[in-house]
Amino acid sequence: MKDAQNRPLADLPFTLTALRNAYARGVTARAVMAECLARLADVGDPGIFIHLPPEADLMEAADALGPFDPDLPLWGVPFAVKDNIDVAGMPTSAACPAWSYAPKADAFVVARLRAAGAIPLGKTNLDQFATGLVGVRTPYGAPRNALDPDIVPGGSSGGSGVIVGHGIVPFALGTDTAGSGRVPAALNGITGLKPTLGALSASGVVPACRTLDTVSIFARYVADAHAVFTVAAGVDPADAYSRPVPAPPLPAPLPAPRIAIPDATSIVFLGDTVQRDAFAATVAALKDAGAIVTEIDFTPFYDVARMLYDGAWVAERHSVIEALMREDPDAILPVTRGIVGNAETLSATDAFRGFYRLAELRAACAPVLAGCDMLCVPTIPTFYTVADLEADPVTPNSNLGTYTNFVNLMDLAAIAVPAAPRADGRPGSVTLIGPAGSDGRLAAEALRIEALATGTPPPAPVAQPGADEIALAVCGAHMSGLPLNGQLTGRAGRFLAATRTSEDYGFYALPGGPPERPGLVRLGEGGQSIAVEVWALPKSAIGGLLAEIPAPLGLGPVRLEDGSSVPGFLCEAAATDGATDIGTFGGWRAYLAAKAAPITQ
Amino acid sequence: MKDAQNRPLADLPFTLTALRNAYARGVTARAVMAECLARLADVGDPGIFIHLPPEADLMEAADALGPFDPDLPLWGVPFAVKDNIDVAGMPTSAACPAWSYAPKADAFVVARLRAAGAIPLGKTNLDQFATGLVGVRTPYGAPRNALDPDIVPGGSSGGSGVIVGHGIVPFALGTDTAGSGRVPAALNGITGLKPTLGALSASGVVPACRTLDTVSIFARYVADAHAVFTVAAGVDPADAYSRPVPAPPLPAPLPAPRIAIPDATSIVFLGDTVQRDAFAATVAALKDAGAIVTEIDFTPFYDVARMLYDGAWVAERHSVIEALMREDPDAILPVTRGIVGNAETLSATDAFRGFYRLAELRAACAPVLAGCDMLCVPTIPTFYTVADLEADPVTPNSNLGTYTNFVNLMDLAAIAVPAAPRADGRPGSVTLIGPAGSDGRLAAEALRIEALATGTPPPAPVAQPGADEIALAVCGAHMSGLPLNGQLTGRAGRFLAATRTSEDYGFYALPGGPPERPGLVRLGEGGQSIAVEVWALPKSAIGGLLAEIPAPLGLGPVRLEDGSSVPGFLCEAAATDGATDIGTFGGWRAYLAAKAAPITQ
Repeated sequence: MKDAQNRPLADLPFTLTALRNAYARGVTARAVMAECLARLADVGDPGIFIHLPPEADLMEAADALGPFDPDLPLWGVPFAVKDNIDVAGMPTSAACPAWSYAPKADAFVVARLRAAGAIPLGKTNLDQFATGLVGVRTPYGAPRNALDPDIVPGGSSGGSGVIVGHGIVPFALGTDTAGSGRVPAALNGITGLKPTLGALSASGVVPACRTLDTVSIFARYVADAHAVFTVAAGVDPADAYSRPVPAPPLPAPLPAPRIAIPDATSIVFLGDTVQRDAFAATVAALKDAGAIVTEIDFTPFYDVARMLYDGAWVAERHSVIEALMREDPDAILPVTRGIVGNAETLSATDAFRGFYRLAELRAACAPVLAGCDMLCVPTIPTFYTVADLEADPVTPNSNLGTYTNFVNLMDLAAIAVPAAPRADGRPGSVTLIGPAGSDGRLAAEALRIEALATGTPPPAPVAQPGADEIALAVCGAHMSGLPLNGQLTGRAGRFLAATRTSEDYGFYALPGGPPERPGLVRLGEGGQSIAVEVWALPKSAIGGLLAEIPAPLGLGPVRLEDGSSVPGFLCEAAATDGATDIGTFGGWRAYLAAKAAPITQ
Repeated sequence: MKDAQNRPLADLPFTLTALRNAYARGVTARAVMAECLARLADVGDPGIFIHLPPEADLMEAADALGPFDPDLPLWGVPFAVKDNIDVAGMPTSAACPAWSYAPKADAFVVARLRAAGAIPLGKTNLDQFATGLVGVRTPYGAPRNALDPDIVPGGSSGGSGVIVGHGIVPFALGTDTAGSGRVPAALNGITGLKPTLGALSASGVVPACRTLDTVSIFARYVADAHAVFTVAAGVDPADAYSRPVPAPPLPAPLPAPRIAIPDATSIVFLGDTVQRDAFAATVAALKDAGAIVTEIDFTPFYDVARMLYDGAWVAERHSVIEALMREDPDAILPVTRGIVGNAETLSATDAFRGFYRLAELRAACAPVLAGCDMLCVPTIPTFYTVADLEADPVTPNSNLGTYTNFVNLMDLAAIAVPAAPRADGRPGSVTLIGPAGSDGRLAAEALRIEALATGTPPPAPVAQPGADEIALAVCGAHMSGLPLNGQLTGRAGRFLAATRTSEDYGFYALPGGPPERPGLVRLGEGGQSIAVEVWALPKSAIGGLLAEIPAPLGLGPVRLEDGSSVPGFLCEAAATDGATDIGTFGGWRAYLAAKAAPITQ
């Protein structure tokens, strides 16, 4: 029972924004940590943590932060860490007691989060060696699903999914090779952000399949998961698979995202019509919100998915625990040993044959991926109970990976996001999947799904260009919905804001076209304020855009009404001879509207 | 003996330009084919070809071209094809009679060359299954080195290297996994272009190591090899490893290329001081020509090289001939069977451990590669004779791969180019190595080495931006030697040309600075022609440049005196109020000079 006297934060939602506001009001990190531990005690699930430090240590860690530092984006945020990721001062077991070791240092990602002010709470339970999607393959006693204890918690990042599902911490780290960062999100009604491979360093992480692994992020809300991603991402020279991946602030969603879904023939629900209807409802809501939805044959993606355990990649798991399997086989769960032991029959020749097959399947899928902005799939085809797993520990596990197993093999990014609850009250969840580097775009669309599911407007995204982007003011046919907008969206441009120039500009309808184009010319005097849209474009895309710009247009600094300047489309003054002065319309859309419906006099 | 009566083309050098000029003069493809076959007969080496069609068929192929078509870049050019690449109508044996098959179609690359007017002459000898660097591992009788029959011909593309060395054809196709496209070039005194992996389709090519193979190009001269590369390159949807790779016209060399060479401790010549001195002479000549040469520890590159045969990749070769090895082992040469048979002891786990090790070594080498424009190495550390190989068929072969084996494992591009002959008259050869996609840059620098070696000026390169570049006209402080030029050179900009604008522009000294800047403004009338420099910048660099450009400047199309337009620096007309009109100087340098030394009146 919650005692309001001793639990002043009992009603505080543990989101990044709510915590930050509380800290700004004077709440202490110690008080948040106390509430965090009280919530954990309320839940009373001994299966969540494999290692939880003594309360005094955690309180000390909170106190050690000192006074609130608003410059640290995660100041005072407690988070849980899957027990295959090193946290200094806590053992790493990978859910195998015989494997347990005391790491000397934080994993690279944990160190980044700690440097941003976050506090590691403890080490969460997992399917042993991250081999599984169910969360019950652990000798430490499985955690219980946060929403329904009959359902499996999901795995392999079971403890991290469950603790976030309970709202005990704002976020938790998992890992994801086959779907371990997404399946628990679906089963516990939360967000599971599966970054582009290489975005989050694997230094200090127990490998599963080293070429396919990534650290992942669980949070209740998309914005929080993405915010943690931007802090955690960064190139690590010590990790050979680390690479630079854009981690921009949460962008605005695409105005009309092209979303591909499995067609009626290839979509899989294993007879779960409630899940089928829930997915259809989400797709319908996306269409209503402006998405352009196409149906595709999903067979080649399933073909890829099957390679993860049927193919050579199980040898990656074998390379990690080969010595332990040989020297102390009983230290490993029989189900895990069975799966990983399959590698012993695989030759290097088999491995290369698998790579060739994967390369061919990826090439076959490439046009499908190029033809859309993202895929949208059910995160899981159906639900399984703990009893189902006791009856058959393998088939339900395999089925849960239907829509997740192919993603890392194809070097794609993904985010599992809560959708509207199913008709039976179980959580709805879909996963958006896009090319490597599309993490920001996926999060923006996930935010819209989250808003549609909860019926609330999404929080305003950060309307600023990221470090690898440049803001670009457009005043004519490049604006949203107009004929040349594809030159921006086709270059991964994203809409930031509608605003106006300073009162310094002339505005002219240029001869020629189609498409019709205006010219924006800064005047010495007598100018007007003109409506513009500001878009963010990858810096690397500007050269290609510039090459397509015909005279008399060009790119140069445009002054906005707030006094700032951003690069944008300008016009040579010489070209305004013979052009129509349309400055009085104040903008291109207004001019086009007036042309379409001329005012009768 | 050449009979001038019957051999009117006996003195024609078989280069692309010489052949093209001959065709333009009215020489027939039949006459060139006849000369080609006469030269082959002169050489009298039955080891060059595994399959050569009857003379009548080749004459018919020449006649079938019809009249000279100057629109076809390789019209009437005979070329030889390594016998692991399909040519329709000729068997493909990979130097294994039991393997031989009759392909239904040309390999993708052969089809592209044929479509450009080239005529496949026949199928050249190779180390069986392209496994070797010596050229004598063939049951068809080894070809003889074109320069010295005591020396091995080199392999695995031995026949293709020898036939080009003799000047019988202007170019020949090889393949290159470990160095098979480079070692024969060094041994026969010719150019060996080893493209970026995926640039030249592998469809219709017998794989060696499918993840590491590329078709390669032999030619006497760099310009010819590069010209063939631009024709042969192209994405092939049927090859899962095909990818878009820039294949621009031959660019100008970098003004001051940063070239890294192995340092004195790590460079390997196996006691061959003549080879050592020859390499040193080439490096000295490069320095004299403006290169900035640095010495690096080459150990990690050797570590990568050793993985090619010691590591798991031999299983790729095994995957190709596994069935033949099992069913008809005696069909395979013992030395080849021994090498490929090593794969039978390798597990999938071994394979993944190899990938991890390679990823780590690549990450370790990445800063070295990022710190220079290219590597320069001896193509081979020393020479071996046929007798050496008879005494030890393995060690000399391994040693020949010292500077080649690591290249494809690291996804690098390379070109072996003749350098000045050694003191003992044997051919000099160095290899330039750069990142994937640097084929054009490497060829440009190779052209300079070729010119230094022959003492002739290099042919004028095409001063055009490459496919990934954009031309940019600069008229002020960004010009060569002026204060903002570093904004171009620091972004890998390269100087293309000094030229002038059309007579449409006003030119103004803007207030402010330093640095002082001019403004170029297109006028409706009364303009002048202004001196500009045109630079090529990577398209990806334009966004960063744009972000640094202050008002009133911007980027837009600038008309040049030849009527073309390129993007360049322009100025807002409004900013010329209060600026000094300097149009009469005709350019920024002239204005600066006049300011520095004002004319006294």
